[in-house]
Amino acid sequence: MAGSSVKPTPILKDELDIVIPTIRNLDFLEMWRPFFEQYHLIIVQDGDPSKIIKVPDGFDYELYNRNDINRILGPKASCISFKDSACRCFGYMVSKKKYIYTIDDDCFVAKNPSGELINALEQHIKNLLSPSTPFFFNTLYDPYREGADFVRGYPFSLREGAPTAVSHGLWLNIPDYDAPTQLVKPRERNTRYVDAVLTVPKGTLFPMCGMNLGFNRELIGPAMYFGLMGDGQPIGRYDDMWAGWCMKVICDHMGWGVKTGLPYIWHSKASNPFVNLKKEYKGIYWQEDLIPFFQSAVLPKECVTVQQCYIELAKQVKEKLGKVDPYFIKLADAMVTWIEAWDELNSSGEKSSKSTSK
Amino acid sequence: MAGSSVKPTPILKDELDIVIPTIRNLDFLEMWRPFFEQYHLIIVQDGDPSKIIKVPDGFDYELYNRNDINRILGPKASCISFKDSACRCFGYMVSKKKYIYTIDDDCFVAKNPSGELINALEQHIKNLLSPSTPFFFNTLYDPYREGADFVRGYPFSLREGAPTAVSHGLWLNIPDYDAPTQLVKPRERNTRYVDAVLTVPKGTLFPMCGMNLGFNRELIGPAMYFGLMGDGQPIGRYDDMWAGWCMKVICDHMGWGVKTGLPYIWHSKASNPFVNLKKEYKGIYWQEDLIPFFQSAVLPKECVTVQQCYIELAKQVKEKLGKVDPYFIKLADAMVTWIEAWDELNSSGEKSSKSTSK
Repeated sequence: MAGSSVKPTPILKDELDIVIPTIRNLDFLEMWRPFFEQYHLIIVQDGDPSKIIKVPDGFDYELYNRNDINRILGPKASCISFKDSACRCFGYMVSKKKYIYTIDDDCFVAKNPSGELINALEQHIKNLLSPSTPFFFNTLYDPYREGADFVRGYPFSLREGAPTAVSHGLWLNIPDYDAPTQLVKPRERNTRYVDAVLTVPKGTLFPMCGMNLGFNRELIGPAMYFGLMGDGQPIGRYDDMWAGWCMKVICDHMGWGVKTGLPYIWHSKASNPFVNLKKEYKGIYWQEDLIPFFQSAVLPKECVTVQQCYIELAKQVKEKLGKVDPYFIKLADAMVTWIEAWDELNSSGEKSSKSTSK
Repeated sequence: MAGSSVKPTPILKDELDIVIPTIRNLDFLEMWRPFFEQYHLIIVQDGDPSKIIKVPDGFDYELYNRNDINRILGPKASCISFKDSACRCFGYMVSKKKYIYTIDDDCFVAKNPSGELINALEQHIKNLLSPSTPFFFNTLYDPYREGADFVRGYPFSLREGAPTAVSHGLWLNIPDYDAPTQLVKPRERNTRYVDAVLTVPKGTLFPMCGMNLGFNRELIGPAMYFGLMGDGQPIGRYDDMWAGWCMKVICDHMGWGVKTGLPYIWHSKASNPFVNLKKEYKGIYWQEDLIPFFQSAVLPKECVTVQQCYIELAKQVKEKLGKVDPYFIKLADAMVTWIEAWDELNSSGEKSSKSTSK
């Protein structure tokens, strides 16, 4: 059963890419060196292509700037955000690996309550390689962790679990607050280390943050589109949220799980709340329509690949959210373009589907 | 917003009863004395009425044995289990208080990671007095705790939260495992202190354990029926589970929240797995029908009190689970008897209803 035989965590060296949207901070990679050096990095530069990002020696990486994105995607590059970290999803598309870990450059290595440095990537790998429990809640949290199991009353037929598509990690120090909360609580820091991983239940939406996020690209990659944000767009800071809501509706449809909790990273600095308010304010009221939309979104049985689900969702976005603001019509078109570009770059014909066991 | 002003926790001395099913262990109350002495105890003796339960001096208590239950309820006493801790729900019925805390006599005071004794009751009161968030998942757990809040992307319209009906606490040391897991993992102990409280999302079922449980009796009391277990019944150890599934379906219908997580108690000893297996084995396979039943149960809009919801649920149990085993026909009848008895003893006419704000 669950935690009965504890094996060392595989490191997935040849199966995982780390995607980073721009690196403005030279300390960032040095701090992560012991944990990241053995992996391949994909850096997606969000702003001016003429600026040079200096990657320290010893890292294996590829770097894409706007010119590269335009060259590779041609007219389809329009679906990738400009001057916004949402551009990171281009990295998901060009990766050829099974797993992705994405992290922001203001996220440093955190310590656990015993003072040990946390290997965030190792915990994400544990989360992604063990099943999820989306169909019934386990009160002792992830039953597949060492020292834990399913509690009395947990149906035996559900103990095999579901494939895990996403591992959502958290943040010590600066919590991921919206601009109004940042403004109201400028001094709040997250000091609570919650030693838990849990599955977000089926049918439940959550705010997925892109700061510290792992996922199974082969399963859910095509749903991880970070939308149209930044330069020329009416909102920002909803890129990861958008991806999270689309992804969750699709995972629920496909029978896959999403975990949240460990690992923590140390979020070093708060972004400017005034700038954030400007980026967020439309999102704050649009969201009141978006959540009921995603809560009631139903995908037809005929959608058996993530691509089919995503195209169907784009159709529903256009139909139902187009009335909220013309932005969503543009976004729905970009969602379709994203899938076309994804399929072009991932032309092996392999599609994540319900019938494939992975 | 959420944690911005931290007030001392009220102790609810005149608003809370502690319900204990039998006390076989004299150390139990002594250990809890500093935390329980100021409250009123309701002890419900589960077995032979001629056995005397010695309550140490200084406790304010009332004690009911089977003779008392028969005398007070008359023929309706048939709905109260005999020789099983499920009889504790009689205590919920005779209480006149707004809140109930129920605990087993093999549960001792636990310590937090700093080595301090945990006042479980205080944490349950915090949980019950602060709202729940059943409609959207907050990744930093209970946003109403000190040092926490709603994260970016949490809809503002949902930040007022919902009334909290139930606070489900956990167990260090001996985890609440079923007989098969006990047999397979005889040495497993729960040593992981997870510093979190969270709302079980709407639409999600969980295994509610009655060992360490607080609830708002005025809101959800009539749904807290622990069923027919023990002497003369084909199953045991599903009393709290049954209550939990019925309660959760009704809370979801009423728009109320259920929290799980802190506080921990120290569960001192495992019950006999062989005895447990005998009690559980029918439940283990019946459960495979029960869970889909509760997951798909819908209560009509016309049900606006917990009593109405519960009677409707009893009807559906009879119709749909009666086919699984005749036991469920008997149980459905007992559910109706329970509500009749509840209303008889709580005749002020006050009923928990959607329109009442509490």
